[in-house]
Amino acid sequence: MADQQLFIKMALDAWNTYLKRTGDLFNSLSDEQIMQETSPGRNTGTYLLGHLIAVHDRIIELFFLGERLHPELDEAFLKNPDKSGFDMPPVETLKQYWATVHQTLAGYFANMKADDWFARHSSVSPEDFEKEPQRNKLNLLMNRTNHLAYHYGQVIYLKK
Amino acid sequence: MADQQLFIKMALDAWNTYLKRTGDLFNSLSDEQIMQETSPGRNTGTYLLGHLIAVHDRIIELFFLGERLHPELDEAFLKNPDKSGFDMPPVETLKQYWATVHQTLAGYFANMKADDWFARHSSVSPEDFEKEPQRNKLNLLMNRTNHLAYHYGQVIYLKK
Repeated sequence: MADQQLFIKMALDAWNTYLKRTGDLFNSLSDEQIMQETSPGRNTGTYLLGHLIAVHDRIIELFFLGERLHPELDEAFLKNPDKSGFDMPPVETLKQYWATVHQTLAGYFANMKADDWFARHSSVSPEDFEKEPQRNKLNLLMNRTNHLAYHYGQVIYLKK
Repeated sequence: MADQQLFIKMALDAWNTYLKRTGDLFNSLSDEQIMQETSPGRNTGTYLLGHLIAVHDRIIELFFLGERLHPELDEAFLKNPDKSGFDMPPVETLKQYWATVHQTLAGYFANMKADDWFARHSSVSPEDFEKEPQRNKLNLLMNRTNHLAYHYGQVIYLKK
């Protein structure tokens, strides 16, 4: 296997592993459980579910792949903390968004060429990318995987 | 930058980022705070601190780098869950272990050649590695980074 292909497989495997763990966890919880705080005074499962969907939905634009599916989630789940009073879709709807956003991403990822994974994403300028070639799409996916694992560690506290 | 070097930098940067975040977090907490449960009925900060040290200490052997510093931690922090009644060193001692284990690892990592990161670690056999070349040392480090981020998301709940 060529080096690039091998790295891409390593990073995508880790991403898919944590996506599956987190998706399976949300599916194993009732809507009522997800609406609870993950720990007293901390983020609810609803907030973390919406937050992860919004963060992952943004990847579509960061990777120049197309238009986001759910920019309307940003106000409640990205720009503001939990319990800020913004409207949140019901958990059932968020669970559907989780599925469609990740199916959409998987479709886009399947069509990306190896070189494209090592090209810049939209939050780094061409000039900065010249100096810091590690700030590529694959690196962003690795960061998002760590971010996902971080919140997965909190969502798991909803489990009885 | 050659592909391998670039990818090694990406994975090591992520590892060092979460190590620093978690180390800074533990240092910002009092020993009394660390001894608390991260959420009611869940792992204490002490357990997670010892657990992360033990898991990271094991990397020395998994990478064929030398002898582990603290195999004595395995009973309390790796083989058994929290509150199993095994002796745990005081938090202050664990904080020293955290520093020395990660300094030791950083020294070993600095001397590893690029090719070595893409060689097998000791928990995969040469035969399996032939078929699954992605199960290399760098991949193990990426998995450990996700594991670290997962528990960092829990330790942060100790912060008032």
